[in-house]
Amino acid sequence: MCSCVIQSIDAIDARFSLPEGAGSDAMHTSPAYAMSLTNLKTEGGPTGVGLALALGDGNRLVCEAIRMLAQPLVGQPVEEVMASFGKVARGMANDPALRWLGPHKGVVHLALASISNACWDLWAKSRGVPLWKLLLDLDDEALVAALDLSYLEEILTQDEALNLLRRERPTRQARESILSNGYPGYDTSVGWMAYDDVKVRELTLHAIDRGFRAFKLKVGSDDEDRDARRAAMLREIAGDSGILMFDANQRWNAPEAMRRCRVLASFNPLWIEEPTHPDDIRTHVELAQAIAPVRIAAGEHIPNRIMFKNYFLYGGMHFVQADCTRLAGISEFLTVSLMARKFQLPVVPHVGDMGQIHQHLVLFNHIGLGLKVKFLEHIPHLRAHFVHPAQVRDGVYQTPQEPGASTDLKMLVQA
Amino acid sequence: MCSCVIQSIDAIDARFSLPEGAGSDAMHTSPAYAMSLTNLKTEGGPTGVGLALALGDGNRLVCEAIRMLAQPLVGQPVEEVMASFGKVARGMANDPALRWLGPHKGVVHLALASISNACWDLWAKSRGVPLWKLLLDLDDEALVAALDLSYLEEILTQDEALNLLRRERPTRQARESILSNGYPGYDTSVGWMAYDDVKVRELTLHAIDRGFRAFKLKVGSDDEDRDARRAAMLREIAGDSGILMFDANQRWNAPEAMRRCRVLASFNPLWIEEPTHPDDIRTHVELAQAIAPVRIAAGEHIPNRIMFKNYFLYGGMHFVQADCTRLAGISEFLTVSLMARKFQLPVVPHVGDMGQIHQHLVLFNHIGLGLKVKFLEHIPHLRAHFVHPAQVRDGVYQTPQEPGASTDLKMLVQA
Repeated sequence: MCSCVIQSIDAIDARFSLPEGAGSDAMHTSPAYAMSLTNLKTEGGPTGVGLALALGDGNRLVCEAIRMLAQPLVGQPVEEVMASFGKVARGMANDPALRWLGPHKGVVHLALASISNACWDLWAKSRGVPLWKLLLDLDDEALVAALDLSYLEEILTQDEALNLLRRERPTRQARESILSNGYPGYDTSVGWMAYDDVKVRELTLHAIDRGFRAFKLKVGSDDEDRDARRAAMLREIAGDSGILMFDANQRWNAPEAMRRCRVLASFNPLWIEEPTHPDDIRTHVELAQAIAPVRIAAGEHIPNRIMFKNYFLYGGMHFVQADCTRLAGISEFLTVSLMARKFQLPVVPHVGDMGQIHQHLVLFNHIGLGLKVKFLEHIPHLRAHFVHPAQVRDGVYQTPQEPGASTDLKMLVQA
Repeated sequence: MCSCVIQSIDAIDARFSLPEGAGSDAMHTSPAYAMSLTNLKTEGGPTGVGLALALGDGNRLVCEAIRMLAQPLVGQPVEEVMASFGKVARGMANDPALRWLGPHKGVVHLALASISNACWDLWAKSRGVPLWKLLLDLDDEALVAALDLSYLEEILTQDEALNLLRRERPTRQARESILSNGYPGYDTSVGWMAYDDVKVRELTLHAIDRGFRAFKLKVGSDDEDRDARRAAMLREIAGDSGILMFDANQRWNAPEAMRRCRVLASFNPLWIEEPTHPDDIRTHVELAQAIAPVRIAAGEHIPNRIMFKNYFLYGGMHFVQADCTRLAGISEFLTVSLMARKFQLPVVPHVGDMGQIHQHLVLFNHIGLGLKVKFLEHIPHLRAHFVHPAQVRDGVYQTPQEPGASTDLKMLVQA
């Protein structure tokens, strides 16, 4: 274990080009993927790398917020920062100048995500273990000390969080087989909005050949018939046993969502994702009741633990798509996972990190929290940019072995 | 009426110093008031000025977002922009690169607030009328065309918005006396958190002398007894007929809020404001039921019309403190006001603009929407910086007569 004092903080505005049509959905016809990177350098020790997803020039704002928010970390040993990271993160989240801009949402919260993820990456690297192992090795008190549970006290006190963790300890070992067996990926890259039918068919067949059995389709076309045609085609290719998920990316208002979800329900999807605006808890609740047994997935744009708490209490989602690059990083992801455990809801992350960090987090959730991994989203477009890209073999995620959170990018190593 | 083509857009990062202790509350011990200004220059015509409130260096981020977001307005005549401002604003709110950072909240939404307010100011100036008169002069279709009603369709369609406006027309004239009579201000500047008891007493007595009968006190001290002591003192000075409001600025979690609101209820406040986190609809709903007849006020940090809709549908507030410098400007303020009219809730704005714009908006709400003005918050600390500061005489707001939204700042005129 190195002493690993944080010497300097850089924010790096990384832009990536995607293949034609990749990443397109009902709201983003031609997304320019970007990542707001936080680089924590130590003297002679490892470098912590954190990331948050953004699009195009929006990334500049997040990088600027990282520079403003992360300064208090300079000069701190990582073990000290992480020993009370709940307090440290809360301090940054409540920065006197920046809290006003949220609170706990938008540009500043995305910056906090990137910073927090860099701190966790550095912590795991400094101990020479992959993030999933760091999380499993921490005692319960140390894990809870790394979380900011404020504004959740009526449903999740520190003691309740500790009890949730302790309760799962006796059965951990029985769940550790996942470390060697892996867990399935589901393929989001077959059904981007801009892809024509021929391409969707080809990609799906190819994905089936590579072992995938679950597929996401972008819906919310202006042409309603196009959604139904693509859904029918995908169902035909995947067969009755294939798992389909439809993702509307917030495209519909309440009456539209009600009508179009009912149409799409006939293709028997596992879930319909982001049917409407992420702030509209009420409409999610009404949809959840109206389109059963089809279920609702949301989280990609739900900004913080407090909004998730409200979704859980009101019953607005069935699948919790928390994302550690939208929430305030790994800590708030774990906080939301603890709440999901209490509400007995499955956590199936949205992978703003392209799965790099979440492949660790779902292993911890499965073993440490008893939140069974059904599968994890797989989006391969940026894999060439990572030093250790997530490995999916025969449709199954392989357990990462390198120290850290798998966030190292080639561009940073070369620089 | 000038042609008023928008020639250039500047964002100006204005900082203001406050007297010692002014502006302090339970979350902001020493706030550095700042305003993100949007300056829309026209050739030979007036300059539109918009503003959003921020604190300290956070203001830089909002100004940068203004520069990124407002570019499509350059070269457009203001009449054209405002003829379909609902669409224009929606286009900016859904900017392909910036929407991801919200959507519709945080830095980008504050930027949109400043930009929208500048457009309205320019529109009123170009017609040579104060904002309140522009709003009253517009026909119902033109007003609704300036609003983005998306994601509200199940409770407020364009037709319903038109009907709400039409229904009030026959009784408008009876409400126009407010233009000559004015309406009361309430004084927020007597009870800042950092003020000691002697100062609160002095300021309150002085405010009573100047005609004020309603006062806000900051609560949420670490020392619980201090809140009670200050509340008792203020009640004693104001007398039983004085109106008190207590503002916790989000300080408490749910169990704390429940306990402390019950204690403070004994001092018979009109409302308790921001008792907890602004995203926590559920806790507001439970508090609203638990502390009746004391009522809940919120809005200062509620980011958009969709969150307000959820608050209204779930019953999480009694007083709607919408703020056109937190929402996407005057248009979204009016949208929330229309919803409030439908739900029969009073709108009592939070004045992030120091009341400059809201003094116009409550006049329109009163006359055009039948939303009776009870009073409007008065915060005098920045009045020396405005070209036409809001005039409050004998505790009563006087109707502004100068063209525009009263947003001109001396620093811009001198520059």
